[in-house]
Amino acid sequence: MPVSSQSYPMSSGDDQHSYIRNSSYQKAAIDGAEKKTRACILENIDLQLNSNLSTFRIADFGCSTGPNTFQAVQNIIDMVKLKHLKENNENSLLPLEFQVFFNDQPNNDFNTLFRTQSPSSEREYFSVGVPGSFYGRVLPRNSIHIGNTSYTTHWLSKVPKHVCDKKSPAWNKNYIHCNNLLEDVTKAYKVQFIEDMGAFIDARAEELVPGGLMIILGQCLPDGVPMYETWQGNVFDTVGDCLMDMAKLGVTSEEKIESFSLPMYFPQFSEVRGVIEHNGSFTIELMETISHPLDDTPLTNDFITSTFRAFLTTIVEKHFGDGAVNELFNQLAKKLTMHPIDFKMWKKQVVYYIVLKRK
Amino acid sequence: MPVSSQSYPMSSGDDQHSYIRNSSYQKAAIDGAEKKTRACILENIDLQLNSNLSTFRIADFGCSTGPNTFQAVQNIIDMVKLKHLKENNENSLLPLEFQVFFNDQPNNDFNTLFRTQSPSSEREYFSVGVPGSFYGRVLPRNSIHIGNTSYTTHWLSKVPKHVCDKKSPAWNKNYIHCNNLLEDVTKAYKVQFIEDMGAFIDARAEELVPGGLMIILGQCLPDGVPMYETWQGNVFDTVGDCLMDMAKLGVTSEEKIESFSLPMYFPQFSEVRGVIEHNGSFTIELMETISHPLDDTPLTNDFITSTFRAFLTTIVEKHFGDGAVNELFNQLAKKLTMHPIDFKMWKKQVVYYIVLKRK
Repeated sequence: MPVSSQSYPMSSGDDQHSYIRNSSYQKAAIDGAEKKTRACILENIDLQLNSNLSTFRIADFGCSTGPNTFQAVQNIIDMVKLKHLKENNENSLLPLEFQVFFNDQPNNDFNTLFRTQSPSSEREYFSVGVPGSFYGRVLPRNSIHIGNTSYTTHWLSKVPKHVCDKKSPAWNKNYIHCNNLLEDVTKAYKVQFIEDMGAFIDARAEELVPGGLMIILGQCLPDGVPMYETWQGNVFDTVGDCLMDMAKLGVTSEEKIESFSLPMYFPQFSEVRGVIEHNGSFTIELMETISHPLDDTPLTNDFITSTFRAFLTTIVEKHFGDGAVNELFNQLAKKLTMHPIDFKMWKKQVVYYIVLKRK
Repeated sequence: MPVSSQSYPMSSGDDQHSYIRNSSYQKAAIDGAEKKTRACILENIDLQLNSNLSTFRIADFGCSTGPNTFQAVQNIIDMVKLKHLKENNENSLLPLEFQVFFNDQPNNDFNTLFRTQSPSSEREYFSVGVPGSFYGRVLPRNSIHIGNTSYTTHWLSKVPKHVCDKKSPAWNKNYIHCNNLLEDVTKAYKVQFIEDMGAFIDARAEELVPGGLMIILGQCLPDGVPMYETWQGNVFDTVGDCLMDMAKLGVTSEEKIESFSLPMYFPQFSEVRGVIEHNGSFTIELMETISHPLDDTPLTNDFITSTFRAFLTTIVEKHFGDGAVNELFNQLAKKLTMHPIDFKMWKKQVVYYIVLKRK
């Protein structure tokens, strides 16, 4: 059964700061991979998995509140239907039914997810919410035909041991994320990532049917590029600087910052590949990196602030208190205005796209 | 796919007025039927349904926010495990896994449901939330082994046609529920109940596997007893009187009351039996009425007020506005104090208990 883990869901509800309204950066990456997903499903999924197949089960792991999850899932359904029509038109007595399992932590805002999806009369699948950490089992053995996860596994199950411990060589000082400036910190984060990603793959291996596909999309560093050289790393460091400014103003304290580090790690691509290859339950159908589709569009400061706010609010609130969120992101907006990001100067993260087939 | 329907969920959250804290009347009936459920499952469920059975799927239709649903489901799991141990001990290579589908309307408070259930490490089933009206399909064909529903099907999918229409012979005047005083109103409610209960049974017939069990527990009138002769009917009528008092005080208006009638119907037992028998997809393993276990305990006014408030809040709020709820139930408490219910004088509803087996 699922393991417990620290959980800081995306901003709930649907107001101006919610994840629903501030997840278009992630959406762009999903859009960019849509063609690949379509081609991959058409080529790889075997609908003869079970001659009595009447329900096709899809799971999205780390679905948050939408709307990206609905799009990813619809894309998969469209392709399966197309393939099913081609292959089974004459044999099928009953139409294939779809059941979609939307998974996220138990404190995810499932109410908003359920209330914002299309009404059942306009939906061609039975919708289901699955509360639980995807770093453990959340679904029965052999029950899923296609699994999907987008922009999720950079969230670790917990802050790595010792990075918030002032006495440890792996202490992250007043940095708030793994910017790769401190070797022992990087190592601690990497160990945690490998453990978590390994657990993710192990759990999915049990949940997927033989022949089932697992699609994994996320963001990582190109090999050899440290986080502190990327514009994304720079924004995280700037958030840290804002917190330090707030400490000087007495809104928070240096001690609080020194005991804070995000449970988040952007691996280098070879690290992702390593974990996948280490698990022997899948064949790798596709594993590549692509540029983020918005790489050529200089992002506005507002867009960056809103995007970071939507995924950091819960965790900032928990550690620094309710009042800190507005102050922090106002500060961030100001700093970005004073020192705009020169996108040509900074290196960029890339999007990795992986399709696995359960042996 | 599921049909749309009017939906007024039980009071959300877990504060003093929530359904979670005010559903012990319903719990008592479920407790009272527990032994029957256990015996019925042991006797009737066939675990050889499928020789490769590795996941046993249970659904609770109209689960609300808990905790009654967790108890009902655990009771079922305990019995299936017992039976499985007895029958399959030597044959099974892998332990049976359980997946439980908690169904309710999309505006049910699933967040509270997920956050109040035992942590996954202490739970022996995979938990899933299913948003949708149970008067239509909410799950794939042939996917459920045992279905359960407790205290749900007296909620109609909508207020019957014409009972709020002043020009119709089926107009319910200033009564707020079907108290059986007006023949045309009773007829309209009965037609709606038969349609809804029929749709419920039809949908479950598709969702259950052949050999699967459907357990239905609810409250009804003994044959020949009209609602207005029961203490429950009297409480509903008293709620209506309170609204009329509020109209006199200008807090609401008579027009508003005349256009209000609850989408709720307590059938006579023979009406329930009629609908079940009309659907030919099930064999009837058990169909009987039992006294409500609290029938011999005079209920306190506080208990009655809180119980009615927990299931009426949403609908009262929607029709009469936010402010009306407190006022209405304060009035009800006062009226019950001035005119305590003489439980010996009033007739009583009964609990019906039905176990069906999918042919």
